[in-house]
Amino acid sequence: MNTNQNYKNLNESYLFSTIAKKVNDFTSQNPDTEIIKLGIGDVTLPLCSAVIEALHSAVDEMGEKETFKGYGPEQGYDFLKSAIQNYYKTNNVNLDLNEIFISDGAKSDLGNILDLFDKDNTVIVPDPVYPVYVDTNIMAGRNIIYTDANENNNFLPLPDLSVKADLIYICSPNNPTGAVYNKEQLKQWIDYAIKNNAVILFDAAYESFIDDNNLPKSIYEIENAKKCAIEFCSLSKTAGFTGTRCGYTIVPNALNFNGMSLNKMWLRRQTTKFNGVPYIVQKGAAAVFTQDGQKQIQENLNYYKQNAKVISNTLDKLNIKYTGGKNSPYIWLKCPNNMNSWDFFDILLNKIGVVGTPGAGFGKNGNNWFRLTSFNTYEKTQEAMKRFYNLFK
Amino acid sequence: MNTNQNYKNLNESYLFSTIAKKVNDFTSQNPDTEIIKLGIGDVTLPLCSAVIEALHSAVDEMGEKETFKGYGPEQGYDFLKSAIQNYYKTNNVNLDLNEIFISDGAKSDLGNILDLFDKDNTVIVPDPVYPVYVDTNIMAGRNIIYTDANENNNFLPLPDLSVKADLIYICSPNNPTGAVYNKEQLKQWIDYAIKNNAVILFDAAYESFIDDNNLPKSIYEIENAKKCAIEFCSLSKTAGFTGTRCGYTIVPNALNFNGMSLNKMWLRRQTTKFNGVPYIVQKGAAAVFTQDGQKQIQENLNYYKQNAKVISNTLDKLNIKYTGGKNSPYIWLKCPNNMNSWDFFDILLNKIGVVGTPGAGFGKNGNNWFRLTSFNTYEKTQEAMKRFYNLFK
Repeated sequence: MNTNQNYKNLNESYLFSTIAKKVNDFTSQNPDTEIIKLGIGDVTLPLCSAVIEALHSAVDEMGEKETFKGYGPEQGYDFLKSAIQNYYKTNNVNLDLNEIFISDGAKSDLGNILDLFDKDNTVIVPDPVYPVYVDTNIMAGRNIIYTDANENNNFLPLPDLSVKADLIYICSPNNPTGAVYNKEQLKQWIDYAIKNNAVILFDAAYESFIDDNNLPKSIYEIENAKKCAIEFCSLSKTAGFTGTRCGYTIVPNALNFNGMSLNKMWLRRQTTKFNGVPYIVQKGAAAVFTQDGQKQIQENLNYYKQNAKVISNTLDKLNIKYTGGKNSPYIWLKCPNNMNSWDFFDILLNKIGVVGTPGAGFGKNGNNWFRLTSFNTYEKTQEAMKRFYNLFK
Repeated sequence: MNTNQNYKNLNESYLFSTIAKKVNDFTSQNPDTEIIKLGIGDVTLPLCSAVIEALHSAVDEMGEKETFKGYGPEQGYDFLKSAIQNYYKTNNVNLDLNEIFISDGAKSDLGNILDLFDKDNTVIVPDPVYPVYVDTNIMAGRNIIYTDANENNNFLPLPDLSVKADLIYICSPNNPTGAVYNKEQLKQWIDYAIKNNAVILFDAAYESFIDDNNLPKSIYEIENAKKCAIEFCSLSKTAGFTGTRCGYTIVPNALNFNGMSLNKMWLRRQTTKFNGVPYIVQKGAAAVFTQDGQKQIQENLNYYKQNAKVISNTLDKLNIKYTGGKNSPYIWLKCPNNMNSWDFFDILLNKIGVVGTPGAGFGKNGNNWFRLTSFNTYEKTQEAMKRFYNLFK
């Protein structure tokens, strides 16, 4: 038996383990300093009451013979697909039910979707980048082209017409930079994809942070996107589902390549290698899309957005350049004095006990940039930014 | 962009859709006949009360800030891995915690594990077979060798030493045949695997139906299995989790090939393409392994086993040959008069209103065989077998 040799080409990421070690070392030497973590990439508010009620009710159903649910459709129950279909309508996007696939999260589907594509396809990923886009393609042995996201393009790279690629990753609002493409910019990518017979893998996991009505929450708000784009979304950040696990992937019926329907291929992939999301979780997810659920998740989202504002207001006052903060839970700031991101990390930790994430961990274009997140409490975020202001004023 | 051309080699299975169509046609022509379905491949009893309580309690935790859980470890929480570790000890199998990976079910992992292996590996699957083993390898373009499971070997094929293969699928207790390998037989496969530097993919999804203490519930009960086998198990049939989704996969640390640890590769695969099983579901799964949980799931298992006995007793009385029935929820019977399995299906449906599954749907060696399952109610199973007896006595 031969193993998949591509795994040998994977780099270990020491980003979060190095951060944890530095924080531990600091804490043991400074036991009295209150550390404030603005590096958190996970939600912290509990599930809203509409979801909790729906989960309890579904658990009860599973305990009674008459309402018990065994195997469900691998691609998800219609009650949840309909709720998502209606949600898309609020963004003026019309989807067929069979174009919606319920998943256990965007990360799984972003990896698994690659099953549908030839190994010899060339992939475009931005730098800096969510590492999953890179590693999943390394595992399959694909050629990866990096496109620079940097200060010059406001971390929103546009297509280089001289480059030919088959698969294009776009994350908007972006992790880690918080930058959001507008419709005209996305249209350029769509035009490029159609011209090159390429597929855009559009990661919309942070769409619910978009407040600006002119910015697209779904790539399908732009003409022709259904001919070239698959969209991945998740309730992780939208509704606090990081530990509850539910997302959805849109594979339009119009996606046909080499005489094969990507929608039918994905259905076949999922019915063969997946058995669906737990019924209980799908019931909880459907509650997110009710009137009560939408109201309650907005309250949570507003809480995080308020934190983002605390951070961005401080940076504004200090004249520090950043992307994100608006329409995103992430704030991506330029390290003062063009400092290296790890040096900046050390200063924040050692001088004011604030922890963030060095941009270098996401790619070379992050070397002088730094990610703060809005997932801590309002009080701690305020305190952290007070310390930050006093240090750099 | 080129699609994965291997998908063109997949055959559509019309097995269950053809059955559904035949049943519908019959029902519309004979609205007064009570159809009894003994083709059900899904559990029908609700989740036991220990699981229901644990699920409710976990839902409550998710609704409070202090106990809310975000991202968990992709490979599962230690509380559940420890419970599984202890369960294996009852079969005299010692596992390290890091060898246990919590999954959303055996089907997902049986498919996804193939990521770790080279595309040029040759695969052995039995015929008849659970179609997932075949389709997942066709998707990857692997060469498949079928090994005959038939009356001559009691549907328990042993290795052909003249054949060289890299990956070997074994399902015991088997779906669809219900046949169970004993330790000596499994040892032959282990010896073969080690000699050929091959890996056994051991599907133990039906282990909880084994009553005979001499039969292995885990392949690791046999010497050297940790050097060559990955084991997949699931709570689907054990505890009625088909709609709740939780399983576990054992990847021993001793599995090293080409200087690569399969355990470390699988950890990397899962941390990259998976985000773990919902916390709520893992809490429910852990309750299966409590004293109350074990007692309660045994009651459910005994109910199904009693149904299996009703079926096998009838076949015994009629001198119809079969495998399974004991140590398995499936009964695989030889069609009387060497009938073709689809003809037999039609006779059962049209003469006595009983629905089963034609063996031909699982491979050529099933052409004259037929699968009945023990997942209907006791009353209906009794009624079906009374009709069956009267037809063939």
